[in-house]
Amino acid sequence: MKKIPVAILGATGAVGQQFVTLLASHPWFEVRALMASERSTGKTYGEAVSWKQAGPLPQRLAAVKVEACEPGGDFSIAFSALDAAVAGGIEKAFAAAGHVVVSNSRNHRLEPDVPLILPELNADHLEVIPGQKKNRRWKGCIVTNSNCSTMFLAMALGPIHRRYGVEKVFVTTMQAISGAGYPGVPSWDILGNVIPFISGEEEKIETETRKILGFVRDARIELATFTVSAQTNRVPVENGHTECVSLALRSPARPKEIAELLSGFTGLPQQLKLPSAPVHPILVRSEPDRPQPRMDVMTENGMSTVVGRIRPCPILDVRMVLLGHNTIRGAAGAAILNAELLKVQKYL
Amino acid sequence: MKKIPVAILGATGAVGQQFVTLLASHPWFEVRALMASERSTGKTYGEAVSWKQAGPLPQRLAAVKVEACEPGGDFSIAFSALDAAVAGGIEKAFAAAGHVVVSNSRNHRLEPDVPLILPELNADHLEVIPGQKKNRRWKGCIVTNSNCSTMFLAMALGPIHRRYGVEKVFVTTMQAISGAGYPGVPSWDILGNVIPFISGEEEKIETETRKILGFVRDARIELATFTVSAQTNRVPVENGHTECVSLALRSPARPKEIAELLSGFTGLPQQLKLPSAPVHPILVRSEPDRPQPRMDVMTENGMSTVVGRIRPCPILDVRMVLLGHNTIRGAAGAAILNAELLKVQKYL
Amino acid sequence: MKKIPVAILGATGAVGQQFVTLLASHPWFEVRALMASERSTGKTYGEAVSWKQAGPLPQRLAAVKVEACEPGGDFSIAFSALDAAVAGGIEKAFAAAGHVVVSNSRNHRLEPDVPLILPELNADHLEVIPGQKKNRRWKGCIVTNSNCSTMFLAMALGPIHRRYGVEKVFVTTMQAISGAGYPGVPSWDILGNVIPFISGEEEKIETETRKILGFVRDARIELATFTVSAQTNRVPVENGHTECVSLALRSPARPKEIAELLSGFTGLPQQLKLPSAPVHPILVRSEPDRPQPRMDVMTENGMSTVVGRIRPCPILDVRMVLLGHNTIRGAAGAAILNAELLKVQKYL
Amino acid sequence: MKKIPVAILGATGAVGQQFVTLLASHPWFEVRALMASERSTGKTYGEAVSWKQAGPLPQRLAAVKVEACEPGGDFSIAFSALDAAVAGGIEKAFAAAGHVVVSNSRNHRLEPDVPLILPELNADHLEVIPGQKKNRRWKGCIVTNSNCSTMFLAMALGPIHRRYGVEKVFVTTMQAISGAGYPGVPSWDILGNVIPFISGEEEKIETETRKILGFVRDARIELATFTVSAQTNRVPVENGHTECVSLALRSPARPKEIAELLSGFTGLPQQLKLPSAPVHPILVRSEPDRPQPRMDVMTENGMSTVVGRIRPCPILDVRMVLLGHNTIRGAAGAAILNAELLKVQKYL
Repeated sequence: MKKIPVAILGATGAVGQQFVTLLASHPWFEVRALMASERSTGKTYGEAVSWKQAGPLPQRLAAVKVEACEPGGDFSIAFSALDAAVAGGIEKAFAAAGHVVVSNSRNHRLEPDVPLILPELNADHLEVIPGQKKNRRWKGCIVTNSNCSTMFLAMALGPIHRRYGVEKVFVTTMQAISGAGYPGVPSWDILGNVIPFISGEEEKIETETRKILGFVRDARIELATFTVSAQTNRVPVENGHTECVSLALRSPARPKEIAELLSGFTGLPQQLKLPSAPVHPILVRSEPDRPQPRMDVMTENGMSTVVGRIRPCPILDVRMVLLGHNTIRGAAGAAILNAELLKVQKYL
Repeated sequence: MKKIPVAILGATGAVGQQFVTLLASHPWFEVRALMASERSTGKTYGEAVSWKQAGPLPQRLAAVKVEACEPGGDFSIAFSALDAAVAGGIEKAFAAAGHVVVSNSRNHRLEPDVPLILPELNADHLEVIPGQKKNRRWKGCIVTNSNCSTMFLAMALGPIHRRYGVEKVFVTTMQAISGAGYPGVPSWDILGNVIPFISGEEEKIETETRKILGFVRDARIELATFTVSAQTNRVPVENGHTECVSLALRSPARPKEIAELLSGFTGLPQQLKLPSAPVHPILVRSEPDRPQPRMDVMTENGMSTVVGRIRPCPILDVRMVLLGHNTIRGAAGAAILNAELLKVQKYL
Repeated sequence: MKKIPVAILGATGAVGQQFVTLLASHPWFEVRALMASERSTGKTYGEAVSWKQAGPLPQRLAAVKVEACEPGGDFSIAFSALDAAVAGGIEKAFAAAGHVVVSNSRNHRLEPDVPLILPELNADHLEVIPGQKKNRRWKGCIVTNSNCSTMFLAMALGPIHRRYGVEKVFVTTMQAISGAGYPGVPSWDILGNVIPFISGEEEKIETETRKILGFVRDARIELATFTVSAQTNRVPVENGHTECVSLALRSPARPKEIAELLSGFTGLPQQLKLPSAPVHPILVRSEPDRPQPRMDVMTENGMSTVVGRIRPCPILDVRMVLLGHNTIRGAAGAAILNAELLKVQKYL
Repeated sequence: MKKIPVAILGATGAVGQQFVTLLASHPWFEVRALMASERSTGKTYGEAVSWKQAGPLPQRLAAVKVEACEPGGDFSIAFSALDAAVAGGIEKAFAAAGHVVVSNSRNHRLEPDVPLILPELNADHLEVIPGQKKNRRWKGCIVTNSNCSTMFLAMALGPIHRRYGVEKVFVTTMQAISGAGYPGVPSWDILGNVIPFISGEEEKIETETRKILGFVRDARIELATFTVSAQTNRVPVENGHTECVSLALRSPARPKEIAELLSGFTGLPQQLKLPSAPVHPILVRSEPDRPQPRMDVMTENGMSTVVGRIRPCPILDVRMVLLGHNTIRGAAGAAILNAELLKVQKYL
């Protein structure tokens, strides 16, 4: 099979590096262009990047010249890992020029005609794309994935919401430092410490979760009607966001039923056997003290959401602890899975 | 003034060492006896203890012979830092023999005739002591303080409950390793990690908070009627428990009103100018990203509860973040403040 | 090929678990028996072990009954991860009964007729085995690997010693917590801290390095004649020992020559293509700030020694920084490589 | 006594904040001016600074307007915490204008007519000041303190060098993150890691140590003749640099003699009872596993050098482990002690 040529926008940053790592040996996609800001253009990627991934920089890409973020090149997908300060306009320009922009940036996530896809749950939201293209007069389109913390919460809520109806969600997160990019959090601020604040994060979780679990009406995505209260914290963990959740449900459900529901859950990526899809999008652990980020974050190559401690809540219905890999399933891996879905669904 | 002689039960453990540190230069109390298990008796304290405090072992006490935990000695107060496995029987024996047992152990905390004192809030609960002594035929008595996480939660809830009526409490904790004693948490388990489980801790918070804010009826303490849902986590922090809280109130209150209420709060220890009482039992910070354990844990020598991020909750009424020093205000310091209250209130 | 049956002695401990992990899918060896102390015997391995590895416990072994450490069973190799307190006698009994004991324990390492093997460097030391068996009247034998810190130092010194002659070695180590087993180092002792002492470690490095690089004379292994001064520290790192080294050489050598020598080095395991042998036993990095444990410890599945910062020393001849994975190449992986060598060399 | 007015240059940075903290209640000095780069001038100090100290920002100084770094104001001492990129020229301008510049910056440290003072050891080096002023036609002068790692090494070497003659020094450091300023080391780089490189640090230790222990000849300071080989590492520790040292001496000395010599050592600051002088500039600990940064870094308010593990070296004469507080005795505290000496010695 001839591989589909792709570009990575913002290729030198932390999420951009994660894209490079995950796409290096992808069966369907081939990195054709590495794009970044003026600081980097003209240099080779090996010169421009301060490589911070555990594995080595893929050799083939080290020699590639970094280009400016300009549309029109020989690639159909543009994966965007751009900083929110610049992503808005650049992504629009790429979509207008005919590229399918698969973005991890927050800029367009909440626009009603831009799908915010978590493919196990809301692949049907892609149906707003034709309207998006038509109304905006774009040859291409923009598809987004959510904020990292939202991803694991929405994944676990999805099956529960469909079966029992979620009404209220309390979530307190303990988020890894890699979520802040690089250089990100100064070590002086986080070593042996907790920072009980991440700018903009609580608002994202409270809104994006509802969009993922929302529905399409008149070619626009409407938010699900439950309410979310999020409190977010940064903790001295390398990778993996842990979330303590308490839920109110419309119909009663026992913890055991929730556990079975989540354990058995699969979605379209599993049916379609998309290359990046985990076999179990949700893994339920029964030990009293799991999930733990250092132990469980790489479950199914970092693409699974791990759930544990499913138990009653003295106030609402059920409590649980969630964990996911914030830069894989919570960022670059999510975007790549979205792109795989777009290919199979003939949106490329 | 002649100092009051005291004993420390369980003097070699982590909380016992904290008692030794805080009592070394106490204006009212003088350590007369250091008691521990058989492993230590007969040795000097300096030989028996594996000293793990930041400051040096007080020289005068290093040479004191460690005694077995037997009542009857020449001391009126017995501070108990005993392990729960043995504290039950030993504390009773000391109380029966006429000592005032001021305990940090959990064994007797929930008995209706044993006061669970947080002196800024419920000094009136001491009035169950005469009944306790009479019914149990003890010459002395037992007075307890709560679990560390409960302490900071109850402190912040107290003034709010009195003014606005607390109905529901969601709390998620991020607790320091020092809370697990020594050797406590293996480094392999917690370095770069979060453990979303602390055995028995959630139940303690859900019950003890209600006892502290409860009331005396017929010489017994009844629980306050609100409900608490607690989720507890261990994080790689040395000292200081951080707690994310969301509250439902009976009467409406704006965040600003809550902030002013907590900032201005003082109680009996402040009025009585007890030696260990912080000037501000609650310190409200206005920065968006505080309190933080490494920065704020030593506020007022570790005796204040630091509160921040007081803001609305999309589901309930108000959210906030709490912090306190788990081995000072949350353990040994709390017991010493209780003993100071007992002295002034003539219970010695 | 029919697999060779093996036993793991001390299978429930930290190194024992590493053996279980590495042997789970080994091409030549098949775990037939899991042996441990009385506490565990009779239980299944899944019940007996507190599994602390990143990956899951291999399912086939979870159901295996743990046996007492008794020789005579249906296995030819006994991998020993026993605690030094008991390893001495048990290993002798297994050797006497005809098993080939491949030990990671320190007890017999320094006996002149027991090979201390680092197979890239001193496979010829195996020739003392016939004498060992004869003099001790054993049907089997004991073969050991060194202490973890020694392994990486000896690996880097080996090629240099042969070519230029090592005369003096200063080494300061910064060792990971996993080197202390489980529960090992209490988190209170190491979080945000350095402990400048590891019991017995400096003596091991100063002696074992010389035995590995020693020579066989009259069926006994004699120590190499250079001198080693080791200072050892524990640091809050999960896996990977970092070592700062300064060397005096008999013949002059420039850093560039040393770097080329180490980069190009291979030994018998590479020639024999042993299954656990790294392609490059030594990887030389040229960045100014590498190796780093979190980034480089898994080089070649944790079987390579990574060397960097090769540069002149103002006092001696050359300085460098070494890194290796202490529980893989420094423990279980080393023993398995030794067993692979023993098989190919017909010692089984 | 009327206090001496002082300015702090670079007052908003990490070391500048440490100056503010230590000078807030100084008995002799009063902060009159807070100076920083253009980014901060015109704002109040409270607005301009991102306060990162454990204690609160001194209230009186929060309201002070930050000024540009211009000489001529109403202060005699200018404490310099300037970045090396700008310190050179600014410090010269202040000295020319008549201020006594007491600098923590590296720019002028190695100039032969600029004293590099560690007042317990080389107060006599101040005698080059008249020549400095005359030759450079300055009304004021520049006095420096060393790099943080050098400070503790020189302190411990000083008494040994005088008595026994130091010939060779091997030192491997494990340095705290606070030594890199703020934001300094990204948490992604150091959490659970060791970085075996600190730019320029090894050269500083190898040279500055020799200048401190050097001597004045013809109004110039000449370096001591021993040789130092330094290897420097960054470790995940908040405060406190730990150093493993091995020494060759001219005259033989047993570890016990060295321990007694260091324990009993005092210098001019102790005789003069300078306000910031520790009672014991060197504290020798006898436990096998001390000093440790988290436990010992605040010894004598962070002004002592703590020494432990004094023992023989298999190659040279003696080994030991050193520890000091890198931002107190290793930076701002050192400069303040220098200024106290300058006052008493009539250099103001």
